[in-house]
Amino acid sequence: MTSLNPSQSASGTPTASTALFTDRYELTMLQAALHSGTAFRSSVFEVFARRLPEGRRYGVVGGTGRLLAGLADFRFGDAELGFLAEQQVVNQQTLDFLADFSFTGNIYGYAEGEAYFPNSPILVVEGSFAEACILETYVLSILNHDSAIASAASRMTSAAGDRPCIEMGSRRTHEESAVSAARAAIIAGFASTSNLEAGRRFGVPTVGTAAHSFTLLHDSERAAFQAQIAAQGPGTTLLVDTYDVPAAVQTAVELAGPELGAVRLDSGDLVVQARQVRAQLDALGNLNTRIVVTSDLDEFAIAALAAAPVDAYGVGTSVATGSGAPTAGMVYKLVSRSGDDGEFVSVAKASKNKASVGGRKYALRRRSAAGVAQAEVIGIGHRPEDDGDDRPLMQDFVVDGLLQPGWTGPEAVLRAARRHQESTAELPASWRQLQRGEPVIPTEYEAPKG
Amino acid sequence: MTSLNPSQSASGTPTASTALFTDRYELTMLQAALHSGTAFRSSVFEVFARRLPEGRRYGVVGGTGRLLAGLADFRFGDAELGFLAEQQVVNQQTLDFLADFSFTGNIYGYAEGEAYFPNSPILVVEGSFAEACILETYVLSILNHDSAIASAASRMTSAAGDRPCIEMGSRRTHEESAVSAARAAIIAGFASTSNLEAGRRFGVPTVGTAAHSFTLLHDSERAAFQAQIAAQGPGTTLLVDTYDVPAAVQTAVELAGPELGAVRLDSGDLVVQARQVRAQLDALGNLNTRIVVTSDLDEFAIAALAAAPVDAYGVGTSVATGSGAPTAGMVYKLVSRSGDDGEFVSVAKASKNKASVGGRKYALRRRSAAGVAQAEVIGIGHRPEDDGDDRPLMQDFVVDGLLQPGWTGPEAVLRAARRHQESTAELPASWRQLQRGEPVIPTEYEAPKG
Repeated sequence: MTSLNPSQSASGTPTASTALFTDRYELTMLQAALHSGTAFRSSVFEVFARRLPEGRRYGVVGGTGRLLAGLADFRFGDAELGFLAEQQVVNQQTLDFLADFSFTGNIYGYAEGEAYFPNSPILVVEGSFAEACILETYVLSILNHDSAIASAASRMTSAAGDRPCIEMGSRRTHEESAVSAARAAIIAGFASTSNLEAGRRFGVPTVGTAAHSFTLLHDSERAAFQAQIAAQGPGTTLLVDTYDVPAAVQTAVELAGPELGAVRLDSGDLVVQARQVRAQLDALGNLNTRIVVTSDLDEFAIAALAAAPVDAYGVGTSVATGSGAPTAGMVYKLVSRSGDDGEFVSVAKASKNKASVGGRKYALRRRSAAGVAQAEVIGIGHRPEDDGDDRPLMQDFVVDGLLQPGWTGPEAVLRAARRHQESTAELPASWRQLQRGEPVIPTEYEAPKG
Repeated sequence: MTSLNPSQSASGTPTASTALFTDRYELTMLQAALHSGTAFRSSVFEVFARRLPEGRRYGVVGGTGRLLAGLADFRFGDAELGFLAEQQVVNQQTLDFLADFSFTGNIYGYAEGEAYFPNSPILVVEGSFAEACILETYVLSILNHDSAIASAASRMTSAAGDRPCIEMGSRRTHEESAVSAARAAIIAGFASTSNLEAGRRFGVPTVGTAAHSFTLLHDSERAAFQAQIAAQGPGTTLLVDTYDVPAAVQTAVELAGPELGAVRLDSGDLVVQARQVRAQLDALGNLNTRIVVTSDLDEFAIAALAAAPVDAYGVGTSVATGSGAPTAGMVYKLVSRSGDDGEFVSVAKASKNKASVGGRKYALRRRSAAGVAQAEVIGIGHRPEDDGDDRPLMQDFVVDGLLQPGWTGPEAVLRAARRHQESTAELPASWRQLQRGEPVIPTEYEAPKG
């Protein structure tokens, strides 16, 4: 167990403090609550998504490890306090509270990599209103982004089957999102990423060889291939669509010989071209030279290539932007809090089309005797009963302000990737269907027990 | 002018080095080019978008200021070199080059905030292949993200007319994207943001008062409003849709009196509710109390509220995720490079559906005598002639490795916001149409001059 202390941060991010990744109203609410004497009421906040993106059948939790690591850096130092004072965001009483802030409560929820469904209580944050309220924006930013990527990436690796997917979307998204997107894609089954910072920060495998510009830099495609093979060896991947694909494949095999690692196709009709190139490679004796395709792929394009002789998929824009759903739509809602008497009261807003369900939540995945998931069961105020085949979903991440071991750092990425594999494997077979439909299992509430 | 030297960084970002926000292949290409002796061929790379997002009529350049500031931090220090060596990403010759790297070439292009169109040469990077190649991923990440946000935000402020838009999408996107999104939204005419880090880093105005959780924390809505007014004064904005809107408005006016600043509606049918609340406020004598609406707004919802008595729009998910187009789809292509004889040669790939146009580009906006934009004119290898009414578009950002003044920092945000206003004002009136259509002006090439 690690104290949430910045000197022991395992976030690996270069950010000194994460505390201002926050909406201003979190701090003005804190000030008003300090003023009214309600700031230290015990509170339970819950992160959930009211629905999955249109037609999706499941979601995948991403970002928990980054969030837990970054919490240690959620501290208000001189720079942060100076800004808040200078801009008169909050008063001195509030600044004093923030100067001493560190989270002392509990955080529990779904393990990273776990499948989730509408209203799954993905994360529960318990503490005083003051300490739990101000985490809202930061918690949601990370979970909404990383879960959107993991959820999209999971559909791609599912469609790809045993063929590896390579994440290469960095150039299509914010430079820091790119690093987190690579991490989330790996959790959802991608084999590697092009992003070097992700390799450094999270220990994930990185790959890459050359772009069209490298071919254009040289006086001929032949000269470019020669240069690349000389520098990277014949096992490299040569990009063969700059001018004429069959001519390039011919040149590539002539220069690299039977050890040519792979050729990459980045344009045109990939199904047709992959077949032609496979036939050409085989005719030239390059039976072991692989074919990598990379042109604006998404889960549907990957599925359409299932019968084509393709060995790996490079995915860019689509994975880095969540394949049509760039945010997971999770919210952070107060569901229970104590009153002046110290007793907890369930609370919920009644807003039209945004009503919430009050009460502290627990969840388990109901499974058949054969181990197939049947329902997401959410107990309000109690843990739903496990009939022996079921799987409780709530994990302890932070207990009394102490970060529990195993949830952060590079090893947590590996663990989350295994969790993703196991969690999807137990879903009904329809989880792999890409067409629009309902969630593969229903969400069921168990009312509070007498 | 500022040398691109990290000790003089104006980026304001907490990132020590930006150099690993890079695809691995940029560095393996560099290695192969160093090996083949082509690494120091003079090269011209161009950033452009082949098309605007489906149905959009113009785009808005965002991110240039962040990019130019971050370039100073694009350096390979011991930490970066150690990672590359340990992972055997590149060889010692390449590491030696990277250790000494700083960009010494030229960067010119469209000013931040400028409108752009298909194939507009948004940024041109001139230098050796080595130094220009390795910037690709970083340049595209920033421009693709920030331009996507600025382009979406511009449609929202256009639809909002004189009513202010407030950016509040931080929780729906990556925590660092959120900061950049706030900046891009301000450039495209947003009045303020909820994001505190954006306030600190870029000097943009921040706003915020309270969420539903604040109401739920208290024993009654009345107690919550009392607490908020006591802490923030009667000029605050009270959120009135937690339980029953008319009752909340009644309570709000009772407690805050005629000085009540605003009420916020976050759910339900906003057109109907805004009318009811306006009537109620007026009947209570609160003629100056404003109405802020914030429920999943996008440019279409804002337009639909034009006739409703709304005073400000809070926009979240839609602006932070680019309103259906989360990336601008810009690419970074080698368009010209020198040969062994030192002479420049235009280059372009012939890939199916991804062909590019070779040659160094210059651009101007052709305008009528009345000052209305008529065409985006791109000269290949020469500057198109200005007939007196036209406006040249290429600005010098970096000259011989020296950052030119005025393009970075908080003042650049203000300048870009003014540029956005001026640039859109000269477009044909159809630029404000939200329905799908063609770009409001055509892109025309002028061939190389004999």
